[in-house]
Amino acid sequence: MLESKVTRFEDYRISKAPYYEPVGNEVLLFQMAYENKRPVSLRGPTGCGKTTLTEFMAYTLGLDITAFPYIEVPCHEDITETHLLGRYDLDGKWLPGPLYIGAKYGGMVVLDEFIESRPDVRVLTHSVTDDRRVLSVSKTGEVIQLPDNFMLVTCYNPGYQIKSKVLKPSTAQRYITIDMGYPSQEIEVKILMKKTGIEKEIAVKFVRFANDVRNMRDSDRIRIQEGVSTRLLVMVCELYKSYIRHKLSPNLKTIAKVALINPITSEQTDKKVLEELLAIF
Amino acid sequence: MLESKVTRFEDYRISKAPYYEPVGNEVLLFQMAYENKRPVSLRGPTGCGKTTLTEFMAYTLGLDITAFPYIEVPCHEDITETHLLGRYDLDGKWLPGPLYIGAKYGGMVVLDEFIESRPDVRVLTHSVTDDRRVLSVSKTGEVIQLPDNFMLVTCYNPGYQIKSKVLKPSTAQRYITIDMGYPSQEIEVKILMKKTGIEKEIAVKFVRFANDVRNMRDSDRIRIQEGVSTRLLVMVCELYKSYIRHKLSPNLKTIAKVALINPITSEQTDKKVLEELLAIF
Amino acid sequence: MLESKVTRFEDYRISKAPYYEPVGNEVLLFQMAYENKRPVSLRGPTGCGKTTLTEFMAYTLGLDITAFPYIEVPCHEDITETHLLGRYDLDGKWLPGPLYIGAKYGGMVVLDEFIESRPDVRVLTHSVTDDRRVLSVSKTGEVIQLPDNFMLVTCYNPGYQIKSKVLKPSTAQRYITIDMGYPSQEIEVKILMKKTGIEKEIAVKFVRFANDVRNMRDSDRIRIQEGVSTRLLVMVCELYKSYIRHKLSPNLKTIAKVALINPITSEQTDKKVLEELLAIF
Amino acid sequence: MLESKVTRFEDYRISKAPYYEPVGNEVLLFQMAYENKRPVSLRGPTGCGKTTLTEFMAYTLGLDITAFPYIEVPCHEDITETHLLGRYDLDGKWLPGPLYIGAKYGGMVVLDEFIESRPDVRVLTHSVTDDRRVLSVSKTGEVIQLPDNFMLVTCYNPGYQIKSKVLKPSTAQRYITIDMGYPSQEIEVKILMKKTGIEKEIAVKFVRFANDVRNMRDSDRIRIQEGVSTRLLVMVCELYKSYIRHKLSPNLKTIAKVALINPITSEQTDKKVLEELLAIF
Amino acid sequence: MLESKVTRFEDYRISKAPYYEPVGNEVLLFQMAYENKRPVSLRGPTGCGKTTLTEFMAYTLGLDITAFPYIEVPCHEDITETHLLGRYDLDGKWLPGPLYIGAKYGGMVVLDEFIESRPDVRVLTHSVTDDRRVLSVSKTGEVIQLPDNFMLVTCYNPGYQIKSKVLKPSTAQRYITIDMGYPSQEIEVKILMKKTGIEKEIAVKFVRFANDVRNMRDSDRIRIQEGVSTRLLVMVCELYKSYIRHKLSPNLKTIAKVALINPITSEQTDKKVLEELLAIF
Amino acid sequence: MLESKVTRFEDYRISKAPYYEPVGNEVLLFQMAYENKRPVSLRGPTGCGKTTLTEFMAYTLGLDITAFPYIEVPCHEDITETHLLGRYDLDGKWLPGPLYIGAKYGGMVVLDEFIESRPDVRVLTHSVTDDRRVLSVSKTGEVIQLPDNFMLVTCYNPGYQIKSKVLKPSTAQRYITIDMGYPSQEIEVKILMKKTGIEKEIAVKFVRFANDVRNMRDSDRIRIQEGVSTRLLVMVCELYKSYIRHKLSPNLKTIAKVALINPITSEQTDKKVLEELLAIF
Repeated sequence: MLESKVTRFEDYRISKAPYYEPVGNEVLLFQMAYENKRPVSLRGPTGCGKTTLTEFMAYTLGLDITAFPYIEVPCHEDITETHLLGRYDLDGKWLPGPLYIGAKYGGMVVLDEFIESRPDVRVLTHSVTDDRRVLSVSKTGEVIQLPDNFMLVTCYNPGYQIKSKVLKPSTAQRYITIDMGYPSQEIEVKILMKKTGIEKEIAVKFVRFANDVRNMRDSDRIRIQEGVSTRLLVMVCELYKSYIRHKLSPNLKTIAKVALINPITSEQTDKKVLEELLAIF
Repeated sequence: MLESKVTRFEDYRISKAPYYEPVGNEVLLFQMAYENKRPVSLRGPTGCGKTTLTEFMAYTLGLDITAFPYIEVPCHEDITETHLLGRYDLDGKWLPGPLYIGAKYGGMVVLDEFIESRPDVRVLTHSVTDDRRVLSVSKTGEVIQLPDNFMLVTCYNPGYQIKSKVLKPSTAQRYITIDMGYPSQEIEVKILMKKTGIEKEIAVKFVRFANDVRNMRDSDRIRIQEGVSTRLLVMVCELYKSYIRHKLSPNLKTIAKVALINPITSEQTDKKVLEELLAIF
Repeated sequence: MLESKVTRFEDYRISKAPYYEPVGNEVLLFQMAYENKRPVSLRGPTGCGKTTLTEFMAYTLGLDITAFPYIEVPCHEDITETHLLGRYDLDGKWLPGPLYIGAKYGGMVVLDEFIESRPDVRVLTHSVTDDRRVLSVSKTGEVIQLPDNFMLVTCYNPGYQIKSKVLKPSTAQRYITIDMGYPSQEIEVKILMKKTGIEKEIAVKFVRFANDVRNMRDSDRIRIQEGVSTRLLVMVCELYKSYIRHKLSPNLKTIAKVALINPITSEQTDKKVLEELLAIF
Repeated sequence: MLESKVTRFEDYRISKAPYYEPVGNEVLLFQMAYENKRPVSLRGPTGCGKTTLTEFMAYTLGLDITAFPYIEVPCHEDITETHLLGRYDLDGKWLPGPLYIGAKYGGMVVLDEFIESRPDVRVLTHSVTDDRRVLSVSKTGEVIQLPDNFMLVTCYNPGYQIKSKVLKPSTAQRYITIDMGYPSQEIEVKILMKKTGIEKEIAVKFVRFANDVRNMRDSDRIRIQEGVSTRLLVMVCELYKSYIRHKLSPNLKTIAKVALINPITSEQTDKKVLEELLAIF
Repeated sequence: MLESKVTRFEDYRISKAPYYEPVGNEVLLFQMAYENKRPVSLRGPTGCGKTTLTEFMAYTLGLDITAFPYIEVPCHEDITETHLLGRYDLDGKWLPGPLYIGAKYGGMVVLDEFIESRPDVRVLTHSVTDDRRVLSVSKTGEVIQLPDNFMLVTCYNPGYQIKSKVLKPSTAQRYITIDMGYPSQEIEVKILMKKTGIEKEIAVKFVRFANDVRNMRDSDRIRIQEGVSTRLLVMVCELYKSYIRHKLSPNLKTIAKVALINPITSEQTDKKVLEELLAIF
Repeated sequence: MLESKVTRFEDYRISKAPYYEPVGNEVLLFQMAYENKRPVSLRGPTGCGKTTLTEFMAYTLGLDITAFPYIEVPCHEDITETHLLGRYDLDGKWLPGPLYIGAKYGGMVVLDEFIESRPDVRVLTHSVTDDRRVLSVSKTGEVIQLPDNFMLVTCYNPGYQIKSKVLKPSTAQRYITIDMGYPSQEIEVKILMKKTGIEKEIAVKFVRFANDVRNMRDSDRIRIQEGVSTRLLVMVCELYKSYIRHKLSPNLKTIAKVALINPITSEQTDKKVLEELLAIF
């Protein structure tokens, strides 16, 4: 049994360009924000490509830089200052957190699902997004002047942001804020074909089904929190290809159920409504 | 007094095929998800066979692999990142948690009752279910690239999921999601006979009673959270066999009370309604 | 000053048969559950003899076994996994908890007032009541296969179980569940005489008073949470005997007040109603 | 500057009989409970003499015993198992808590304001009030058999017990429960004279005022939580004596305000009503 | 750069008599309470001189005593037993808290904003205000007999005490309780002149404005929590003097805004009403 | 890769005068408060220049002083006494917090978003703003006399202060309290030109748009928490300059969207209303 490959945080970078299909001027604006040393906030539904974009930008911006760490932190209400800045272990060795690494070595720190973070984590980002660009680390007694190639990015989905989780203006008014959505049908089909090798005809079917569901979201007929993500479409195409590989005839309805319908609802009534839509297959 | 047998986590595997009776195409879909390096989510009522299926699949998928640890974690709101990833003990020795073990050695990690977990535990699963398949362990400073034979499975019962416990779309839209239910009467009788050695006639009686109760669940007559599980049916058959072994005449009503009725309700009125059903014995 | 006698957990057993007066077939069912390696759940009002039964069964089942520890854990919302499994002290010595001891050495672990426990404690019991009968101890990295003579028992009073404290079906549907109540008048008088040496005539008076109160519980006249327990009856008989021992004439009303009425209510109005019942003395 | 006198817990006893004026048969009942190895619960308003009684009984019961520690623990919602049982300090030295000391060396442990304690503290008292009389100390791995001269006493005021703070029947039905009230006027005057050396005439005035206030408590005219305690009466008499000692003419109204009225209310309207009652002076 | 002057707790005393202007018999009553070894509770609005009185008394009472530490603890809901009693540092050195210092060396301990403290802190004061005058320190295993020259004082403002923060009678009925208010106009002017050297004419103007605001507090026109404190009046006079020192003509309206109006409200409407009152300048 | 520049807290000072454009007499009042050793409270909307003013004053006041540390602490509900005062690390080395540094070495400590702090943090500021000017540090046992050149400043936005977060009068009535607002159009244009080098014509356009939005804030048409800050205006001008630098024609509407509209709202309807205002471009 071979142990899996392990990397140290400070050496971590995006070494391979991920496949990203631009939908607007987001790449240019992202680049300009970086040049102006401003943070970026990406907003949009789950699985629409927010973190693929950050990986793509981290690859691009880091091309000419010796080290350009890329660290993604999924936020939640139990992430604390200690997680982001670091701490001493019992032997007195300093274990740097993502923000500390970024403040020391530069690179991109992505706070995913930022809206889920606690107030203390949110204000931590204030000093690194101020004009003075400093990070105070009380545990080590340091006040770190951020390097020019440090960039902070926050991602979240405003769609299901609830009252208690709205960002305060003093936080929100620091970011170049880019709103993202699902790709157009044409682009989404292209993505599926490129990522899974599926035939266009099948891809179109699944994308149409996804768009039907997305459009139903605001109707009275079903109560789903969010539409079908591009990620789920990739998964259903993979299952389709699995059937082919197993030399079985693909059961479109079965794989649509387990990869497109079940993941977005567990309500019997909603599942029934969505299964009726499968008549298109 | 002999001490009981103890195994280390990393060596732990399912060495004996558990008896599992398939009800649909769940085994095939589970296998395809594994081949596509996608996680699986199993949903269904308590005691319907979700973890028996995971054990069965862990046995099957691990057949040709030297080490294929199988670790089941019952989730609840006090399970934290530390439980899943690991921690250093006071001597500085690293105590790996289930996800860390899976990320290092491969195998199957099953998060049972996933719906009971806290947000921080749920987002922990995000990076291991992303395309990049990495696990960041801040305590050790590692970013682990998951081995191909690592698989994550989550189980839960959507039946009594309450508002505050619904999975966020950003979590749910990562899983091949398979819905399971109680077996058909024929299959359930077969399971009871195989597991307890009970005669068919008695098994049929108990299964019929169970189905009567399951059907009553949605009626106004009783207020039970969930129907009789296959597990309880196994238990009542065991008691029946105990009476035989003790050379006593089995008291069907008594054992049905303690093994089928009392475990599903403590309300006097509901117990009375259910005891009336025992007239079939 | 002599220090009191101290026993280590692992050596602890019930060495003297406690006096237990069976009321139904609970002893047989308890024994069968043990033989089938199934856990038992005892439900009933406070002081009706639940833990006396567990002590009696622990004595009986352990008769032929070299070591059969008996450990009773009163549950409450601050009992954690650490209490039940164990932990390392500052010198690195492992301090085993009740479940760990049971998993290693066998014996009976009784979780009293189980309904008061937290979700994390409840799910801890899942793996030891599964078919696989294992206990995973993350702190030591062990997966312990339970010995055949390990038995888990939970006790609680469903009478005052509130909404937030109902057991989940996935927990409840694992136990042979035996409902217990107050003994019949005849048996209760017998218990009092045997335990305190009181004359039958007086015992009957107190038991009648107790039954009057128990019957009033559901009426509109008083608002008490629970009726008079057998335990309180034992206490009032002891006080009666104390008066005799002090060569004083026993004041029935006084001792009924401090041992039967005051312990079940502190409301002036309820106390008045109950004191009127004392006219029977 | 001399340091004040310090005693170790284990040597602590009541070495001087406190002045206690019995009001009923509480001393006899308390003694009998001790002889029967039963715990006692004292209920009554603040400052009515509950802890003076426990000190008096601890002195009396401990007369013939070499060591009879008396430990009073004021309960509140932050008292934990650790406070009561003990813990290891950083050097590995065991710091015994009150219950541990009582379980090892005997004596009386008084849990004052027991109604304010948390559920975990309340159930801790269960095993020491059971027939088996044991104390399990998980931290040291001990199961301590209680010595015969260990007694547990709980005190509280049921008068302002709120819903969430009612004792569970499984806790309450373990105690010989004695209800106490304010002393009669005659006894209270006697107490004041004995404790402060005040003249009878003045003492009578203050006690009458106190009883007027106590009687008003249930009226609509004022909203005070509790009446004037004997403790406050002692304080006002002391102030009176202070004026005499300072060779000043005592200002009855002033000292009644700061020692009898202000301590029971801070509401302007209530203070006005009570100050009108001072016309009696 | 010189480091600032640092004193150890145990040596700390009030070495200079603060300027205190008595308003009633509070100094005499305070002295008598000290002589009777009774605690004092001072109640009144913010900035009315409560802590100036305690400093003054600590100076006076400590005149003839070698060491008479004065320690003021601002209470809040995160102050714990550990803050008040002390704790061991990591090297095993005992760090005494304020109450421990007082119990060992005597002196005055002032719990400011006592109403903000938690229940555990409040009951901590019970044993030091009992007749037995002891302080149990579980961490060191000591039961300390309080020295005669130890005095406890609590201060708070009953004006904005909310339901959940009312003192329990068992706490409140231990204190000689002195109610304080704003000084009369004459005295307040005297205070301002003495403290800031301002001319009488200006001082009168500001005091009149303050009294106008205090009187408006109960009217419908504004919604302020509390009136202008003497402390604010001192601050506005200081600003006036600053203008003179800078050889600028003092802008009465500007300094009244920043030192008298803004500190008591941030509501636009209230600020407007108060600014109209400035017409008197 | 060069590591970024790191400074120790105690050496930290503002070494370069930040560009600050005064709007009233705030600089004079701030200076007088410093001379009178009084704390200052700055209130106003996000991004209106509060911390730029504190930096400017820290630069000015510190000009003639060897060391004048400037430490800004963003408050939130997880900032504790330990953060502000300091703590010992595991090796027993004292890690001073901001207030401790200020109390020892002087300088300016700015508690930003003070309204978000917890009660324990708020009362911590009481003793440093009292006449006695002391800081008690229980962990080190010190009572520090503040140096003359220590100044405390608190900043917050009363605009979105909610009920539970209002400052208590005993806290608020200690500060010279200065209210700040957005700069006038003329000054704001000047700021933008100076900071970003943008042409006046464009700056005017953006400022006008900002003022339109600010004025709409109280209307029914949109529901935004706060208007466009000066900070956002700087950011949009920077983007404009980026387009020029990239030799692209600036897309005013696009950059207004990502830098002025998106950062202040994520509501579709509000965004639509605001985008209509862009017709002015």
